[in-house]
Amino acid sequence: MMMITLFLSLFSLLLSTLPATLASQSPPIFFPRATYRSSSLKQNEIPKTKIPFKTQFFPQILDHFTYNPQSYKIFYQKYLINSQFWHHGAPIFVYTGNEGNIEWFAANTGFLLDIAPKFRALLVFIEHRYYGESMPFGKDSYNSSETVGYLNSQQALADYAVLIRSLKQNLSSEASPVVVFGGSYGGMLAAWFRLKYPHIAIGAWLLPPLSCILMTSFRKQASTMLFHRILRWSCLSSQSSASVSLNCYQVIKESWAELEALSSQRQGFAELSKIFKSCKGLHSVDAAQNWLWAAFIYTAMVNYPTEANFMMHLPAYPVKEMCKIIDALPPGVTKLSKAFAAASLYYNYSQTEKCFNIEHGSDAHGLHGWDWQACTEMVMPMSCSNESMFIPYSYNYDAFAEQCMKKYGVTPRPHWITTEFGGKRIEEMLKRFGSNIIFSNGMQDPWSRGGVLKNISASIVALVTEEGAHHVDFRFATKDDPNWLVEQRRQEVDIIQSWIDEYYADLRP
Amino acid sequence: MMMITLFLSLFSLLLSTLPATLASQSPPIFFPRATYRSSSLKQNEIPKTKIPFKTQFFPQILDHFTYNPQSYKIFYQKYLINSQFWHHGAPIFVYTGNEGNIEWFAANTGFLLDIAPKFRALLVFIEHRYYGESMPFGKDSYNSSETVGYLNSQQALADYAVLIRSLKQNLSSEASPVVVFGGSYGGMLAAWFRLKYPHIAIGAWLLPPLSCILMTSFRKQASTMLFHRILRWSCLSSQSSASVSLNCYQVIKESWAELEALSSQRQGFAELSKIFKSCKGLHSVDAAQNWLWAAFIYTAMVNYPTEANFMMHLPAYPVKEMCKIIDALPPGVTKLSKAFAAASLYYNYSQTEKCFNIEHGSDAHGLHGWDWQACTEMVMPMSCSNESMFIPYSYNYDAFAEQCMKKYGVTPRPHWITTEFGGKRIEEMLKRFGSNIIFSNGMQDPWSRGGVLKNISASIVALVTEEGAHHVDFRFATKDDPNWLVEQRRQEVDIIQSWIDEYYADLRP
Repeated sequence: MMMITLFLSLFSLLLSTLPATLASQSPPIFFPRATYRSSSLKQNEIPKTKIPFKTQFFPQILDHFTYNPQSYKIFYQKYLINSQFWHHGAPIFVYTGNEGNIEWFAANTGFLLDIAPKFRALLVFIEHRYYGESMPFGKDSYNSSETVGYLNSQQALADYAVLIRSLKQNLSSEASPVVVFGGSYGGMLAAWFRLKYPHIAIGAWLLPPLSCILMTSFRKQASTMLFHRILRWSCLSSQSSASVSLNCYQVIKESWAELEALSSQRQGFAELSKIFKSCKGLHSVDAAQNWLWAAFIYTAMVNYPTEANFMMHLPAYPVKEMCKIIDALPPGVTKLSKAFAAASLYYNYSQTEKCFNIEHGSDAHGLHGWDWQACTEMVMPMSCSNESMFIPYSYNYDAFAEQCMKKYGVTPRPHWITTEFGGKRIEEMLKRFGSNIIFSNGMQDPWSRGGVLKNISASIVALVTEEGAHHVDFRFATKDDPNWLVEQRRQEVDIIQSWIDEYYADLRP
Repeated sequence: MMMITLFLSLFSLLLSTLPATLASQSPPIFFPRATYRSSSLKQNEIPKTKIPFKTQFFPQILDHFTYNPQSYKIFYQKYLINSQFWHHGAPIFVYTGNEGNIEWFAANTGFLLDIAPKFRALLVFIEHRYYGESMPFGKDSYNSSETVGYLNSQQALADYAVLIRSLKQNLSSEASPVVVFGGSYGGMLAAWFRLKYPHIAIGAWLLPPLSCILMTSFRKQASTMLFHRILRWSCLSSQSSASVSLNCYQVIKESWAELEALSSQRQGFAELSKIFKSCKGLHSVDAAQNWLWAAFIYTAMVNYPTEANFMMHLPAYPVKEMCKIIDALPPGVTKLSKAFAAASLYYNYSQTEKCFNIEHGSDAHGLHGWDWQACTEMVMPMSCSNESMFIPYSYNYDAFAEQCMKKYGVTPRPHWITTEFGGKRIEEMLKRFGSNIIFSNGMQDPWSRGGVLKNISASIVALVTEEGAHHVDFRFATKDDPNWLVEQRRQEVDIIQSWIDEYYADLRP
């Protein structure tokens, strides 16, 4: 078993980070968070025009929980708003932004636009502080812990509370019911918002993997255990591959040794550069491992039933397509080349890339702030067992904490999140406390394991689909959507309708 | 109507602060918070030996919600513990300390000791940060907003969460159910703790006036309205007096004009000093007003059915006793002298005082931190109508904010508490969310009006006694307790027992 230090952002985090230092003898790569998008796609090229939202900025307070001259500082928090279907007093649907540019989340949460007319809902997507353009200290926001120290989930939740309250007041629509929506870390935020600010949000709809992340962090109080289960499954996302093709699973599992062996040969990196079609000469075996790892993990996450472009442009059921590529190659082709060919589907389904930036991925969605969150509150121990199709590794908290101190001058607070939001036995607590939460789980998503898979109470419910993938319910409905997806969304809409009906009924004298 | 700027701490707050600047033409007295205890009683003379608790100190983090070098600072938070009845796995009863020395609260919450054997409960009284000995920066804690900026309710709640979690872990008794108890501001904290940390506390028992403060702040979102209703009633605590004696009410109501008139006469202050038996020559009419005001308000609050010594040593039903004094004096005696004679019951029932420190009350319970809280988060607009037996006054937010800026260099955040903890329509929200809260109200307490007086749901209940006063249920049971008090406590104990039974039942596989 080799040692690894991991910084996993949640979904974009899976986006943003990768296992580093797969070999214990080499120094850890600290923050692998490249999305490995083509270098030809720059941040400002993300198509903003497609999302019918007005951009606004809210004067937000820097520190809600302290009172000194610094804490009163105002910064401008971005939010997107669509009021074309709304009328006074009607519901407000709020997406609790997570670790990236808010436009990206808005563009991939089309289902809220689909249902806005039915509910006559106002749609609001709020950008998380310290992401996108919501930078409290402008370009200096990440300079030191003195400036970035205010980036965390509790401040973010308070931001949402203050902004929503002010927005309703400005609209003179204080009786409008608010429902929060979120995916991944944004889903954790949505759930926590419902639990901590029930006077502001009447309900929350959480999409995977947030539900599983949330509940796993809930369930396993000892931080060193937090994410074992999830990553074990992520590592076994082979499960998707293996269920499609045992050969596919074995090829990937054995390709890592080939990669390692080749890198230690004379001229090995030159050969690797060729195999990986690297735009520049390769120098790091870790980078090559990460590049492959990301392709397999992310493809498992977005194993959607229709062609889509969330993380990358991909065909319908891309895991099956990847395995088809591996299985179709003749026995003479090395396992490493087969793994590369499969990964290329993820990076180049559109056939627009001539070469790949293996060592220098871009951060097109502005996710790098997650590294700070991982070093402070979001401590997520990970490990990977031998059964996995990936290289096994185990978690080393001390090494992780040391790197955080080196990079940011802070030590993690590994027990804080479970103290603030709950840990062990959260289901027993929720059975007797709280209401109006939907945990939605697609079992194809590597993150779904460990999630809330059974109803907790009459109004805290789990919706599970065997064929669902990461965030699929939130996407625009299409004519090609399979029946299970149509049915899943119908249930979700019905539940939200029932919350709203009950809310209005309670208002009546 | 005259203008007034008020800093009202909650119960000790009513203890700690008084209406100032009753005349709009004179500059406002900023922080009247004297308890007007005899100068002969010093802080360290509060009898600590009577409470059977062990004193402990917990290494607490300064700022739970920020990550920079300062926020990681550790301070030592005091807590008192009694484990004589506890056994492993049995309940833990936590008093969420409020704005004063924790020993004082422990000494006046004897009922927890009464019931500890029945529940085999561990008792823990946690001191609120920045009160008593729990000073993050020692003697410098209140030097400037840089040091005192971390004093607020959210940090206090987080302290309690961290301390309880750690305590349970150290006791290896993580499955022990925790019930929180609190009175006044401590009661708000107990209720908020149940709502924000339901994974830590299975229920909360709140005593007046906390319940009413809590719910009024909940109910009236616009801060400028927050406490009108309460103080209108406080001002009308004549209600107690009037119901006892209309003459009593009228004497007090008319005494203020006599005081004002006398003070403007030549030799008026010399005469006032004599009337008030002032140890030193009187110079301030405000101080004399405050001294009387405090006596009437606090006596109404602690109008207990038995002799007691919470705020001051007083006989059973002291309001009736005060009015007896007024009614017994012959018509020739001035109204001011009658009012003084009545107030003397409050200050000198024990007959130990030869003279009174009218202008320089002591802060025997260490309450002065409330002034900071009132200037930041706990903005409590107050006013007093003409119907009251007190001098009418209205609230001026701008003048208040200006004084806060002058004193502390900060401006209040008047909407924050209702954003963080709820405002309007809290009952409707609680009807559908949350569980296991007892709001206990004694209608004799001036603070009881505006409280939760009706059950909200099956497990969020209001217990109301017509004859109850401030905090009476929390006091040691005595053989002289009236039946309604015995019955009130029986119900409270039964409800807590049902929470604990349900909790253990849920744990069973």
